[in-house]
Amino acid sequence: MLVNQHYMDLPGNYLFADIARKVSAFREQNPATHIISLGIGDVTQPLAPAVVKALHKAADEMALASSFKGYGPERGYDFLREAIAANDYRARGIDIDPDEVFVSDGAKSDTGNFQELLPADCTVAVTDPVYPVYADSNLMAGRRIVKLPCTADNNFVPQLPKTHVDVIYLCYPNNPTGTVLTRQQLSRWVEYALANDAVIFYDAAYEAFIQDEDIPHSIYEIKDARQCAIEFRSYSKTAGFTGVRCGFTVVPKDISASSASGRQASLNSLWNRRQTTKFNGASYISQRAAEAIYTQEGRVQVKETLNYYMHNAHLMLTALRNLGYQAYGGENAPYIWTATPGGLSSWQFFELLLHKANIVCTPGAGFGPSGEGYVRFTAFNTRENTNKAMERIRAV
Amino acid sequence: MLVNQHYMDLPGNYLFADIARKVSAFREQNPATHIISLGIGDVTQPLAPAVVKALHKAADEMALASSFKGYGPERGYDFLREAIAANDYRARGIDIDPDEVFVSDGAKSDTGNFQELLPADCTVAVTDPVYPVYADSNLMAGRRIVKLPCTADNNFVPQLPKTHVDVIYLCYPNNPTGTVLTRQQLSRWVEYALANDAVIFYDAAYEAFIQDEDIPHSIYEIKDARQCAIEFRSYSKTAGFTGVRCGFTVVPKDISASSASGRQASLNSLWNRRQTTKFNGASYISQRAAEAIYTQEGRVQVKETLNYYMHNAHLMLTALRNLGYQAYGGENAPYIWTATPGGLSSWQFFELLLHKANIVCTPGAGFGPSGEGYVRFTAFNTRENTNKAMERIRAV
Repeated sequence: MLVNQHYMDLPGNYLFADIARKVSAFREQNPATHIISLGIGDVTQPLAPAVVKALHKAADEMALASSFKGYGPERGYDFLREAIAANDYRARGIDIDPDEVFVSDGAKSDTGNFQELLPADCTVAVTDPVYPVYADSNLMAGRRIVKLPCTADNNFVPQLPKTHVDVIYLCYPNNPTGTVLTRQQLSRWVEYALANDAVIFYDAAYEAFIQDEDIPHSIYEIKDARQCAIEFRSYSKTAGFTGVRCGFTVVPKDISASSASGRQASLNSLWNRRQTTKFNGASYISQRAAEAIYTQEGRVQVKETLNYYMHNAHLMLTALRNLGYQAYGGENAPYIWTATPGGLSSWQFFELLLHKANIVCTPGAGFGPSGEGYVRFTAFNTRENTNKAMERIRAV
Repeated sequence: MLVNQHYMDLPGNYLFADIARKVSAFREQNPATHIISLGIGDVTQPLAPAVVKALHKAADEMALASSFKGYGPERGYDFLREAIAANDYRARGIDIDPDEVFVSDGAKSDTGNFQELLPADCTVAVTDPVYPVYADSNLMAGRRIVKLPCTADNNFVPQLPKTHVDVIYLCYPNNPTGTVLTRQQLSRWVEYALANDAVIFYDAAYEAFIQDEDIPHSIYEIKDARQCAIEFRSYSKTAGFTGVRCGFTVVPKDISASSASGRQASLNSLWNRRQTTKFNGASYISQRAAEAIYTQEGRVQVKETLNYYMHNAHLMLTALRNLGYQAYGGENAPYIWTATPGGLSSWQFFELLLHKANIVCTPGAGFGPSGEGYVRFTAFNTRENTNKAMERIRAV
């Protein structure tokens, strides 16, 4: 069977699948060893009680013909889209209509799928290092990618592209570096997009971890961003939904799309066409669970878990710096981006930590060439394991 | 913003979104009217008690750190893939390895996404009428589509294509016509695919409704289909999972893929690359719910609901034929494909039924040009509404 050439030209594996295989091989050889994962950004704390209550209630509804729910709207139930518009946006003074919100089974699906709306021959800019989904999904479609290096030299703030690009993926708070953009820095990107007829795909999956009051949670806090930016949000890290699967994407009606032949449509209606054709909505049960995050008790419980992880991040950042590591991020994000010691490559340091400290991290090179010489640690493990991991690193 | 030209060239809306809008407008004008939907293939009976029990158990697991589940394997948990291989395949004498099974959030996603692995310039054959997802997802990618008419003249059995095609989408039991292929008829397609280096995308979403013992449930019942066919399965209709979201796709390791440049890979590994890059696995809770279908009690309960719907189908088929309608399907599928009376177009008959009988059906023309002159009725409503609907049609 003849297949899409671009798939064949891809690097062999998805980064985290690669790491999982290496860890699994090590575990097989060392079945008694206690491995601590600070690698993939998966959470460890249970769901909030308000969320669990909502799951049970939804399960009970599904048990009776009178309250059973079949297919929901592809773009998500009104109850959830209205809660999102009210709590994530209007409460911050941002005007987002529920019809601009598309609920999905998670931000990975949306960040992976949204490029389908782009022409095959457009130019896409991604930061380097980068969450692999943005780059890989565009490589699979054969698009040209421009890399915007983010290094200690530029304080991990990408420079505006020197040549024209049509789309820019930005992720802030950043995965993998854990760094943020100030309002002023983000404004420059919105201005660039407006001046260059470009669109920003803004991944705000980690906004709930922001501690500094001045850091924007949404790109729509920036003037006129409604005309040039879509925003991806996730419940995975915010509320421990990595196994529940729910997220959403905001596609403002102000963004107009045109094709090479000159036809016009709104980007919102095109994304709706995509979702109604290839997606059947997120699980009703997951949507009810997500709704519970916005209740008063849900909010308090979710915040408590976020604080728990951010305290982990604080402990790690302090410990790593005390050990003499150059460590970044971790103040408004659950990730700590750490320079490898003694000139080790990021995969060498990954192997060293796995074999000598039984710790899993993510090698920076897996996120792009500018990630070489760094590894990413996550703050999502338990307090006990986080502390133990820092002790083990001290002992290496 | 410049977008994918092929999206702009699409017919305006996804069929079922179109119908939903028309029904919603009618409902607004006639708020007191009791509308009976025999339109979109959505179920009405609640989840099986064994499934509800599994939902509660999974919710409880998510409430404790010790049993909490975060990211699962993108291709699905072992417990479910093993249950599928054992129950859906080995129990029928078919050798499918759990590693050939990819669990997803539903068959619509998989049937929509799988075309991504195809070259942009290959030729795709679909039956006419057809489930719109197969055609639309390929039109969105700019592929050439060959239509294989299925009409009363050929007994709704498509003829082999006269020119070379690279991919054939087949859906049996068929949506929308409710007809089936015998083992011999299906064998001819497998032979064609093997002889022409083509691949069959086989949608077996409705296999659980088959009553006749001789009708194949899986394309892998046909010799050598492992070398040329992938198979989509759904829990939506089988077990009322339209709101729960879970399905799976089988990609045998025997299918080898090559690119224009001559590189080789297995189709299984390419689909894994796609799923690990753009999907984060189905909800853990939905996967545990799906597993419960394979327990002894789950099996009995699910079968009872299937029988309920198939008895509806029998009542409808009988009633429609007694009224003089030419009606097809409904014997091994929950759909009844009915010729419109008096030369009405399918949209005219749709409007007539909506306004005069307050019944929603699906106009055949929405499934392709050969669907003109037909409408599709589904057997998924309650017994009471099904009987009432037949009385209303009698009165029109």
